[in-house]
Amino acid sequence: MEDTDPRAQKLAQDLVKSQKLVNPEIVLFALPSSALPEALRGELALNPGSKFIDIGSVKTKPLLDVSRSSLSPTKFLATHPMAGREVGGAESARADLFQSRTWVYMPADLQGSPVDPELLAAGLWIIEALGATPVAMDAAEHDRAVALVSHLPQIVSSLLAGQLFLGESSDLELAGAGLRDTTRIAASKADLWDEILAANAEQLLPLLINLQSDLSAVVQALQNSKSIAAFIEKGNKGRALIPGKHGGVAREYTYLPVVIEDKPGQLAALFDECASAKVNIEDLTIEHSPGQFTGLITLSLSQSDAQILSDHLIRSGWKVHAPR
Amino acid sequence: MEDTDPRAQKLAQDLVKSQKLVNPEIVLFALPSSALPEALRGELALNPGSKFIDIGSVKTKPLLDVSRSSLSPTKFLATHPMAGREVGGAESARADLFQSRTWVYMPADLQGSPVDPELLAAGLWIIEALGATPVAMDAAEHDRAVALVSHLPQIVSSLLAGQLFLGESSDLELAGAGLRDTTRIAASKADLWDEILAANAEQLLPLLINLQSDLSAVVQALQNSKSIAAFIEKGNKGRALIPGKHGGVAREYTYLPVVIEDKPGQLAALFDECASAKVNIEDLTIEHSPGQFTGLITLSLSQSDAQILSDHLIRSGWKVHAPR
Repeated sequence: MEDTDPRAQKLAQDLVKSQKLVNPEIVLFALPSSALPEALRGELALNPGSKFIDIGSVKTKPLLDVSRSSLSPTKFLATHPMAGREVGGAESARADLFQSRTWVYMPADLQGSPVDPELLAAGLWIIEALGATPVAMDAAEHDRAVALVSHLPQIVSSLLAGQLFLGESSDLELAGAGLRDTTRIAASKADLWDEILAANAEQLLPLLINLQSDLSAVVQALQNSKSIAAFIEKGNKGRALIPGKHGGVAREYTYLPVVIEDKPGQLAALFDECASAKVNIEDLTIEHSPGQFTGLITLSLSQSDAQILSDHLIRSGWKVHAPR
Repeated sequence: MEDTDPRAQKLAQDLVKSQKLVNPEIVLFALPSSALPEALRGELALNPGSKFIDIGSVKTKPLLDVSRSSLSPTKFLATHPMAGREVGGAESARADLFQSRTWVYMPADLQGSPVDPELLAAGLWIIEALGATPVAMDAAEHDRAVALVSHLPQIVSSLLAGQLFLGESSDLELAGAGLRDTTRIAASKADLWDEILAANAEQLLPLLINLQSDLSAVVQALQNSKSIAAFIEKGNKGRALIPGKHGGVAREYTYLPVVIEDKPGQLAALFDECASAKVNIEDLTIEHSPGQFTGLITLSLSQSDAQILSDHLIRSGWKVHAPR
C-alpha cells in the first residue's frame, strides 16, 4: 500500500494491517489521472509480472497512457465505480460505499483485444465482493456518459455558484431551495475536479460549446424581448429523461405534504403512522418555518401508498394536504 | 373575484363563498405582469376609488405600468411573497403556503413617495394574517435579488436539462444525485417562467452575460489544457455565501449516515430512537440501494445532537457511520 500522503498511508496500513507485498499478482491504482504514467513505470520496474486495475473517473486517458507504456494493454483493467465521497483518506472509509452502486469496467483495451481473463475475473470478483454491480462499457462510451451526467452539471453548478459574488449579501437572504439544489455540487473539491474535467476535456467540450450556444440564444432573445419558452420547455423534456433513483425506468412518485410541529418526537410519530399504514416512504424533504415550531414534511410514495397514507393520517388527526 | 379561467373562478368563489363587491376599498392583483396594464385600466373604470395591491414576481415593471396609468402611484402597493407552488388554481390552494415565508413589499413608489398609509397598513395586515414576515425593499433591489437567487438558477437549470438530449439514453443510466439536484427546477412551467424572466430581463441580462464570459473562459482553458480550478474554487466560495434554510446566518449541520433495511417500519424505528435520544433532526436524505432491501439515511443535526444520537444508536445496535 502506497500513498503520496504518509499520514494517510500509515492510517490505512494500520486499519487493514497490511504488509508490503513482493511481486503482487495485481496492483490496484486509485490515482489522479495525471499521476498514472509515472506510477505505472515505477510499479512495472518493481513488479514486472504484475497486472493492474485502475478505478479513476475517466477511462480513455489511462488506456492511452497504458498503450504508450511497456505494459501489454490486456494486463490493465480500467474500471470506474459510480460512487464516491467529497472527503478522502482512510478515516473517511465506509464499508458500504460501493453497495449496490454501478461499477463500470472495460472488458477490452482500446484496440478491442479482450482483457486477460484471469485479471478480468479478479476485477469482477473485487467489484462483486464490495457489493457493486459490474457494467461493461467501452472507454469512449463511459467518458461520453460521465461528461453529460456528471462533468457538465459540475461545471454548470460551479459557474452558477461563482455568480453569487455579483449580488449584495442581502440579495442572498431571499435564496430558496432552487438556488440551494442547483449549487449543492459546487461545494466539490477544486483540485480533484480540475483533474477529472481536464482528463475528459475531449468529451466535455462539445457539450460546453452547445451550452454556450443555447445560452447565447437566450441572451439574444431576452435582449430583443423575444420568448424563451422553447428553452424552458426543452429543459422540461430533458429533465424528464433522467431515470428514477432506483435506476432503469423513471419512477413517478406522489408527494404528500404533512405539516408537523418542529420538535423532537414528531417525525417519529409520523413514521410510526407510516409503519402502521404499511406504506413505503421513498424519500422525503423537511422544510422548516423559521422562528416557529412547525415544519412541512413532503413524503414521496407510490400513488397507491400516498392515498392509503393520506386516508390513514387524516383519520388520526394529522394536518395532511392533498397529494400531488 | 375574477379569473381568466372561468372554471378556476367558479371553484375559488365556491370555496370562499365570495360575492361580487361594489366599489371595493382594495383590489388585489395576482396576474402575469403583461396583464397588469389592462387589468388596472378595467378596474379603475369600474372602481375609481379603489386602492391596489399586487403580488407578482417582479416589481419594477408593474410600478412603471402604474406610473403610466391614471392611478396615483401611492395608491398601489407592490409586494412579492417568496413562496409558491409549481401547480395553480384554487384546488391547489394551501392554508400554510405563506407561513413563515418572507413577503417583500415596497413602502414607496418609484419616485420615493410613501405609499398611502391606510393601504400600507392593510397590506401589512394581509401579509401578517397569512403568517408571512414583511420585508421592505425597493423595487430595483428586489428585482436584482430575485434575478440572482431565482431567475438565473432557473435559466441555468433549464439549459443544463436541455443538454440531456445530446446523449444516448444509456448515458443517463449513470445519472446520480448531482444531475438530479441541478435539474430539479428545470421541471418548472414554461409559460409562467417565460413571463417572469422577460419582465426582469434588465436585471437578469448582466448576470447572464457574466456567466457567458465565465463559460467562455472555461471552454478556452479546457481547449488549451489549462487549469479551471480557479472557477471551481470560486464556486466553492459562492456556494458558501448562501444562508442556511432558516434564513439569516448559514447553519452548519453535522451529517450522520445510518444504514437501514429499506422496508416499512425501519424509518419509524429510527425516528423513535431520535425521539428517545431527544435530538432534533434538521433534515435527512434517503438513498436506496436498487434491488436490495437496504437504504442509507443521512441525518442532518447540530454537532452536539449528532454525537448524542450516534452514541445512542450504536448502543442500540444500529449501523451508524462516523458523523461528518
